[in-house]
Amino acid sequence: MTTIDPARTTCPVPATETERVLLGHGSGGQLMAELLGEVVTGQLGEAGPLEDAALIGVGDTDLVFSTDGFVVTPRFFPGGDIGSLAVYGTVNDLAMRGARPVALALAYVLEEGLPLAELREITASVAQAARECGVRVVTGDTKVVGRGAADGCYLTTTGIGVRLRGAFPSATLGVPGDVVLLSGPIGAHGTAIMSAREGLGFESEIRSDSRPLHGLVAAMIAAGGPAVHALRDPTRGGLASALNELAEASGVTVEIDEIGLPVPPQVASACELLGLDPLHVANEGCLVAFVAASSADAVLAAMRNHPAGRQAQAIGVVGEAGGMAKVTARTLVGSTRVVDMLVGEQLPRIC
Amino acid sequence: MTTIDPARTTCPVPATETERVLLGHGSGGQLMAELLGEVVTGQLGEAGPLEDAALIGVGDTDLVFSTDGFVVTPRFFPGGDIGSLAVYGTVNDLAMRGARPVALALAYVLEEGLPLAELREITASVAQAARECGVRVVTGDTKVVGRGAADGCYLTTTGIGVRLRGAFPSATLGVPGDVVLLSGPIGAHGTAIMSAREGLGFESEIRSDSRPLHGLVAAMIAAGGPAVHALRDPTRGGLASALNELAEASGVTVEIDEIGLPVPPQVASACELLGLDPLHVANEGCLVAFVAASSADAVLAAMRNHPAGRQAQAIGVVGEAGGMAKVTARTLVGSTRVVDMLVGEQLPRIC
Repeated sequence: MTTIDPARTTCPVPATETERVLLGHGSGGQLMAELLGEVVTGQLGEAGPLEDAALIGVGDTDLVFSTDGFVVTPRFFPGGDIGSLAVYGTVNDLAMRGARPVALALAYVLEEGLPLAELREITASVAQAARECGVRVVTGDTKVVGRGAADGCYLTTTGIGVRLRGAFPSATLGVPGDVVLLSGPIGAHGTAIMSAREGLGFESEIRSDSRPLHGLVAAMIAAGGPAVHALRDPTRGGLASALNELAEASGVTVEIDEIGLPVPPQVASACELLGLDPLHVANEGCLVAFVAASSADAVLAAMRNHPAGRQAQAIGVVGEAGGMAKVTARTLVGSTRVVDMLVGEQLPRIC
Repeated sequence: MTTIDPARTTCPVPATETERVLLGHGSGGQLMAELLGEVVTGQLGEAGPLEDAALIGVGDTDLVFSTDGFVVTPRFFPGGDIGSLAVYGTVNDLAMRGARPVALALAYVLEEGLPLAELREITASVAQAARECGVRVVTGDTKVVGRGAADGCYLTTTGIGVRLRGAFPSATLGVPGDVVLLSGPIGAHGTAIMSAREGLGFESEIRSDSRPLHGLVAAMIAAGGPAVHALRDPTRGGLASALNELAEASGVTVEIDEIGLPVPPQVASACELLGLDPLHVANEGCLVAFVAASSADAVLAAMRNHPAGRQAQAIGVVGEAGGMAKVTARTLVGSTRVVDMLVGEQLPRIC
């Protein structure tokens, strides 16, 4: 006869002790937001909205401060490499708070066996990208780990920026009535990386959009000043996650027009083949903005006058909070669908 | 008959293309200095002496900026863990330029499968260490890589500091006649890590000296002001490498008294057993200073009044440049030996 000991019918260890980090925790989507909220920022005492960069008042100066790790694989891909991506990514995070970059710090984790020629090439790309952005790499660090422990190399870039005059963009400042502007086509970076990694043959057609956006932001702020309410570059998690984050931080809803979204035909084909939603695919060279309606035309014109915003367009409007969905899209057939954050992992190691 | 084609007797690829990153490149010693000089800082256009942190003038404020990657294994060790080590390490790099920390950025690279409980514990340790140092973690980033690709987790901490009034310490400012002060015993961190990693059984006896030093530096500067010429925390590469770097940057020589060096007996035993020179073993909680002779007694007294400097002592003097050796030690038998930088790798992954 088998007896059941009631004490042994419970799970032998609390569920939390068996929880582990998943690839999806790095996706930039819902799982990552949960990880940050429950494990990281909760403990660090950082409440409040998630911004791309932090503000710090030092003396009379408003500094902007941002850090980003880069683990992209492959390290060289059509349209860029891990070195330039690391510089542009951090410059762009500063720009999303209306700041021009003034200094970068660069930390390498190198794997034993990495060819020095490759390290030279990556470092040359860092240097070239920094020159292009008018920012100096002023300090750094190099660690080496054993074979198999770092997948070639990881870079962490950290930037200090100074806010432009009259610029206060924040994820929290969107208000109903704002126009949603998008600076260019979406989906190129994620599909370029996946294609390069898996040898899918799109490489010749799709190049990452990796580029710096601080000049574009400066042009937008020159044209719109404080009417530029909120800025975000839709990297991991794609445009869908960026819009959801802005809507959440500002306490508003967003309605976009799916028909007009600029998805290049090659990206659309690749996404269809791979079963990806272009709205969830990472970008590294475009931004989305909430701009006061009265200044939207002027800001849009300024964007189109800048090389990084030639294809800028209005893609939607900001509305009052209400209902369950933060972001919705008007579809081709005239219906409305919910645009959720990316859940789980669509494509690991994209940046 | 075999003919030799002269064109094929040469090495098929240039030697530089076969060079690869070695574990020793991360040692903090000679190899690392070469890697930095030839591959990294050369290309980034950063010439000049290697400092622990960079100075940036923003408005009227002298900011200090420093970044550090942490890949220590094991992640938890006697006397600390990767979380507190990352905070203290960056706080200490700022302190070596005479700065108090004002903000930290924290970037994780997490390996898929890392228990969330461990991530919580590490993050709690970061938070506790930051509170202890009076600094906030204001921004961060989280990347996830696949199983086997990051050895659990790596942290990169980057700090912004503001210089204390009347404080200008720099690796370049040592002058002949300066007294060399050491804030405490050496060798504990490296031997604690090696013991914990290899299960050598010293764990119960040797604890890492990992601790913040910004309070100690503030006390030294309050006592000595600009007489505190140069500061360095002898981490990777140990006291020998730190003294060589300071001597090189200042264009001076250093003579220390080996007999009086504070090496705890357990550390000395472990080093003897393992064939290590305590002068090359990493520390994470002491500093070495070049101080003008006229203020050395006052600074030393201030150090001994601070909890992090109770066992501070003078260990040598700074001399005129000349001869081949930058750093020499008077030995037990009255002779003099050259104290070189660490060459190659003594103990990987110590921080």
